[in-house]
Amino acid sequence: MNRLELFQQIKLKKSYLCVGLDTDIEKIPAHLLNTNDPIFEFNKAIIDATKDYCIAYKPNLAFYEALGIKGWESLKKTIDYIPNNCLIIADAKRGDIGNTSALYAKAFFNELKADAVTVAPYMGKDSVTPFLNFENKWVIVLALTSNEGANDFQTSLLEETSAPLYEKVIRAVQSWGNEDQIMFVVGATRAEQFLHVRSLAPNNFFLVPGVGAQGGDLKAISKAGFNNQCGLLVNSSRQIIYAGKEEDFDSRAGKEARKVQQEMEVLLSEAGLI
Amino acid sequence: MNRLELFQQIKLKKSYLCVGLDTDIEKIPAHLLNTNDPIFEFNKAIIDATKDYCIAYKPNLAFYEALGIKGWESLKKTIDYIPNNCLIIADAKRGDIGNTSALYAKAFFNELKADAVTVAPYMGKDSVTPFLNFENKWVIVLALTSNEGANDFQTSLLEETSAPLYEKVIRAVQSWGNEDQIMFVVGATRAEQFLHVRSLAPNNFFLVPGVGAQGGDLKAISKAGFNNQCGLLVNSSRQIIYAGKEEDFDSRAGKEARKVQQEMEVLLSEAGLI
Repeated sequence: MNRLELFQQIKLKKSYLCVGLDTDIEKIPAHLLNTNDPIFEFNKAIIDATKDYCIAYKPNLAFYEALGIKGWESLKKTIDYIPNNCLIIADAKRGDIGNTSALYAKAFFNELKADAVTVAPYMGKDSVTPFLNFENKWVIVLALTSNEGANDFQTSLLEETSAPLYEKVIRAVQSWGNEDQIMFVVGATRAEQFLHVRSLAPNNFFLVPGVGAQGGDLKAISKAGFNNQCGLLVNSSRQIIYAGKEEDFDSRAGKEARKVQQEMEVLLSEAGLI
Repeated sequence: MNRLELFQQIKLKKSYLCVGLDTDIEKIPAHLLNTNDPIFEFNKAIIDATKDYCIAYKPNLAFYEALGIKGWESLKKTIDYIPNNCLIIADAKRGDIGNTSALYAKAFFNELKADAVTVAPYMGKDSVTPFLNFENKWVIVLALTSNEGANDFQTSLLEETSAPLYEKVIRAVQSWGNEDQIMFVVGATRAEQFLHVRSLAPNNFFLVPGVGAQGGDLKAISKAGFNNQCGLLVNSSRQIIYAGKEEDFDSRAGKEARKVQQEMEVLLSEAGLI
């Protein structure tokens, strides 16, 4: 899915919601544990219930890897099940020397058939650029994350510019590829920096974690982060997928996703984007 | 394996070699492709041929993930096959928010049964510390990597100290855990910085990639990097595992590992460590 198609989906669904599939075997409803593949059954029901209200799904690889080979099977089935009109983001936070990153790109784009993969920038250019050689695929680079640890290094000021490290990351990554290939992770818990980050990357989409369970404010980050193609994919994981714990977990997840979609519709409309 | 046991293995085998299992289906000898699990058959033969000359194995996760579920099966079998007296390093370069890093730790330490996992520090404290809660397991944090991209961010000078980012990473990570839990990745291609890095982390083991194919000099980095427990795990991947391309690939790999071990024996002896 390219950038224009993504914006078209946003306008069609009046939503820029990404549902995070952080599916934890210890948190899914008990009645699913008797099925052959509880993780996939849970995801399938969540996808059915939420697909009209979101434009992307983001399976978090850790949740699947923690279950070993069985987890990878569930992940593959989940990705195959996600409708074509939704962007599939493998939240993997990979990054390694060139020949290794090239293999990760192959793993996520060709083998798993994800549309996008999250990448950590610490190892620099040759760890990021191998992900750019795939048509209509996206690399989503960690810039300013939503967690407390973001303050340990990402916001450290650099001597050469008196600007924070994340700013150097955004500027450097933009010189390696364009806004049709690259998105950035910008945490919703950083509302005060959001305007600044948008000024650094006016045309890139941002994947925004941290709304909901982590406390980020949808309205504030939308107003600061919108560009003329919306430019935001706001992720919500736990708040949606664990909205219910009983047999009606899927309809509760659907309701929660719909609630977020409706808030987004108002914000998109107020901004003149729909 | 704890720090003392690791040093004991180094003294016993007169080696601080780590063999990198970057096993690429496109590079292994043709006769193995007819077997049921070529990747595992290759690794098994390499392990049999090199286990007396090395103290650690480092499967690079990307090479296995690129093959999907089958790759994970090969990886699991490989890890199960590695002898108990060798440290098993899952070279995964993971790192995510706290609850997710905790799952990665579970995936690598409990599910795969690796002894150590490499972690990227960009997301800060809560992305690293979940890996520390496992007895006799190791987290190996990227500090100064061997690739060219290391110069993009890792060596950027910070305003607060005029010191490079990697120095802040090393200092911060040391405040989160101790030398019985934490190692650092320090590239062999950075000989000029090696002494400085050792001064920052006198007691930690370093995992040192970049000797061999990437051009690092074993003698120089050993002299700069040794501490009183050796303190180095020097990795070699391609130079050893692809020493031969025919049916005798394993004996050639063994010979190459033995050659490196013999160089290491001289260096250990000159340093008074054995």
